[in-house]
Amino acid sequence: MDKPKIVHWKDVPPLHPIEGNFKVRMRILIEERDAPNYIMRIFEVDPGGEIPQHAHPWEHEIFVLQGTLRLKIGDKEYIVKEGHAIYIPPNVPHEYRNIGEGVAVFLCTIPKVKK
Amino acid sequence: MDKPKIVHWKDVPPLHPIEGNFKVRMRILIEERDAPNYIMRIFEVDPGGEIPQHAHPWEHEIFVLQGTLRLKIGDKEYIVKEGHAIYIPPNVPHEYRNIGEGVAVFLCTIPKVKK
Repeated sequence: MDKPKIVHWKDVPPLHPIEGNFKVRMRILIEERDAPNYIMRIFEVDPGGEIPQHAHPWEHEIFVLQGTLRLKIGDKEYIVKEGHAIYIPPNVPHEYRNIGEGVAVFLCTIPKVKK
Repeated sequence: MDKPKIVHWKDVPPLHPIEGNFKVRMRILIEERDAPNYIMRIFEVDPGGEIPQHAHPWEHEIFVLQGTLRLKIGDKEYIVKEGHAIYIPPNVPHEYRNIGEGVAVFLCTIPKVKK
């Protein structure tokens, strides 16, 4: 945590599959051991792929890098694309589905202390 | 902090200039009032622009979206481009310079509690 880290996301091996889901890959870019407060992950979702509805007591801060996702937060749906920043509060059910034709890619940060 | 937020970065007005620096624009995408633990900013640096060396007791977690930057962290220099994730530890002097031909764009998150 007292050392800088510089890494290209494509040089980090993906964790795959995520919970049996072969259309989603996650890479952890800034890990628990790297930084004191929060960690940075990147997700790739293949066309038609989804992360089903789930909830947890920590928030997400997300930035979409590529593609088109339908994002459900609570009972509302949003279409998000490259350049959208998203805050999902703690404990709110959320789900993601890639509704575009290409791979969707987004950063998703989470706090360390509440994991 | 209990409400979702969805915003496209280009819809957020830039704070400009940053400390008298007309080649750097910052937009705050996820603000202190939005989220409990950390905030998300996006920086644009025009060609030749720089953020001079500075240090502070909080870390950065950065992701480069576009362009080419020379990043100095402590006494080491790094060239970073689209797709690089960067962790800068607390209290380490750092500076940024756009050495590319286009605008450089990067996300830079910081913790709330240590600001």
